[in-house]
Amino acid sequence: MEKIKIGILGYGNLGKGVEKAVCKQPDMELTGIYSRRTLVHPLYKSVDVLSEGEDLDLLILCGGSATDLPVQTPQFARLYNVIDSFDHHQQIPQHYAAVDQAAREGGRLALISCGWDPGLFSMMRAMLTALLPDADVFTFWGRGISQGHSDAIRRIKGVKDARQYTVPLEHAIEAVKSGLAEAEDMKPEKMHRRECFVVAEEGADKNRITYEIENMPDYFTGYETTVHYISQEKMDAEHRGFPHGGTVIGTGKEAAGSFQLDLSSNPKFTAGVLVAYARAVCKMGQKGETGCRTMLEIPVSLLCEEMFMHM
Amino acid sequence: MEKIKIGILGYGNLGKGVEKAVCKQPDMELTGIYSRRTLVHPLYKSVDVLSEGEDLDLLILCGGSATDLPVQTPQFARLYNVIDSFDHHQQIPQHYAAVDQAAREGGRLALISCGWDPGLFSMMRAMLTALLPDADVFTFWGRGISQGHSDAIRRIKGVKDARQYTVPLEHAIEAVKSGLAEAEDMKPEKMHRRECFVVAEEGADKNRITYEIENMPDYFTGYETTVHYISQEKMDAEHRGFPHGGTVIGTGKEAAGSFQLDLSSNPKFTAGVLVAYARAVCKMGQKGETGCRTMLEIPVSLLCEEMFMHM
Repeated sequence: MEKIKIGILGYGNLGKGVEKAVCKQPDMELTGIYSRRTLVHPLYKSVDVLSEGEDLDLLILCGGSATDLPVQTPQFARLYNVIDSFDHHQQIPQHYAAVDQAAREGGRLALISCGWDPGLFSMMRAMLTALLPDADVFTFWGRGISQGHSDAIRRIKGVKDARQYTVPLEHAIEAVKSGLAEAEDMKPEKMHRRECFVVAEEGADKNRITYEIENMPDYFTGYETTVHYISQEKMDAEHRGFPHGGTVIGTGKEAAGSFQLDLSSNPKFTAGVLVAYARAVCKMGQKGETGCRTMLEIPVSLLCEEMFMHM
Repeated sequence: MEKIKIGILGYGNLGKGVEKAVCKQPDMELTGIYSRRTLVHPLYKSVDVLSEGEDLDLLILCGGSATDLPVQTPQFARLYNVIDSFDHHQQIPQHYAAVDQAAREGGRLALISCGWDPGLFSMMRAMLTALLPDADVFTFWGRGISQGHSDAIRRIKGVKDARQYTVPLEHAIEAVKSGLAEAEDMKPEKMHRRECFVVAEEGADKNRITYEIENMPDYFTGYETTVHYISQEKMDAEHRGFPHGGTVIGTGKEAAGSFQLDLSSNPKFTAGVLVAYARAVCKMGQKGETGCRTMLEIPVSLLCEEMFMHM
């Protein structure tokens, strides 16, 4: 059987994770890593050649959701079957519309927002909502690194390095599981706390830094926030990874369901999800399907070789 | 919009649950309850009229998996879109083949083995297997009533009434969650214990009954089994419901995932799943799809009105 020819656009943490995941698949072949930067990599190709029609079954877009994917996914959905992990939840409908139009015009199939949230957790929210009709469904994130919050702390004057962990509040999880939580009380800041590890520059005023963190609008105000000052050595030794995870919980009058994930590496797991769904998109594309999809529109059977094994 | 016309075949606990669930759906209309027995019910019709071509969008088959469904599902899949909750795991491939052929010949769409296990748990096993490639995936059942084990105890001489709860062993769950469990050690009897509540007939030898339960091949041998003798009043007061549930756990080197369900009523929840998927089957049938499906082949998006709400 001919191998599925995969290209990767973007070579950060996610792209590197996808590279490793693709290389482990016996039915897949990595044929190009496309980048705007010149990479020292045997499979490196300039992103510009993508417009010339590379010999690819599917292109996995590994750029950022802020500026890369809103442009790249519609652009390349015209030319290739594509997958991205666009994660700006509120902008998914617009992104979907743009990608759908491009993919239909090009006769290609696209999958957007593929990962664990949005992605797996979206599927769980939809399933629990549909199957527990009287239930409220809540999502807790963490314990895990929030890149956005870590970046925000790093921009404070006197901060050399920082990582922020989002941590679900145990008492909020218990309230939800026991069915005692009211939906209106369960705002993100009542469900999570924020734990910050900061390397301060020598002589920096730590009280001021802590104050600026705790009072940063949108990011930290309203949250229970703790700030730990540590050395760069300790930061490098203990906070290098990208752990994440979370729990989707639905509690109805007569039934409760929950789905939990614990990931030692957020980008590695997302890479694995992208590659598993890449296979599904190729199968659907071969049947002539075109346009945009989310994971909710992909049947689980397309992820497995032998469906009955799991029945 | 015209309502989806639903018929129910079989009027035990599951059929009654489906009746209630259908009546709660604003877009569905229950048009007939078909039975071999004559029922006192305004919607009662004899099962015989089904062969004459009733005006139905979908027939929900609520009979038993042992003898009813293997005959009824292929028989009526020729004439109607159908759903069943066939739950003999090992016989699903044969059942699928028979129903698929009948449904294709009749130009209808069928969904089999719809419920929580097989069903939701099958989806979770398939997803966790696909997305945690180095993980072992285990299923724990309970705490919940096993009808088969309860019936087996009731057949023992001197037993007036009995209920058997299947209970997952906490230490086995912990072993799986910590990644320490070896797949070969995780046999059902190492993962669960069996808790029996028995009403003995007056003068019956309880030691003999306990011995016969503990040593019943296939059902109890090898399991940690406890037997409690209680009064019929206590049985009726405390053990009338059909609670069930369970957990699917996958633990890989770098990621772990689990899905847990707690149901106060097994048949009521299964009824809700059947009705949610009835809507999906009707949508797919309207698009001209025919043949047999399992829940793994139904995209989650067909269960919800507004997919983006969950993204």
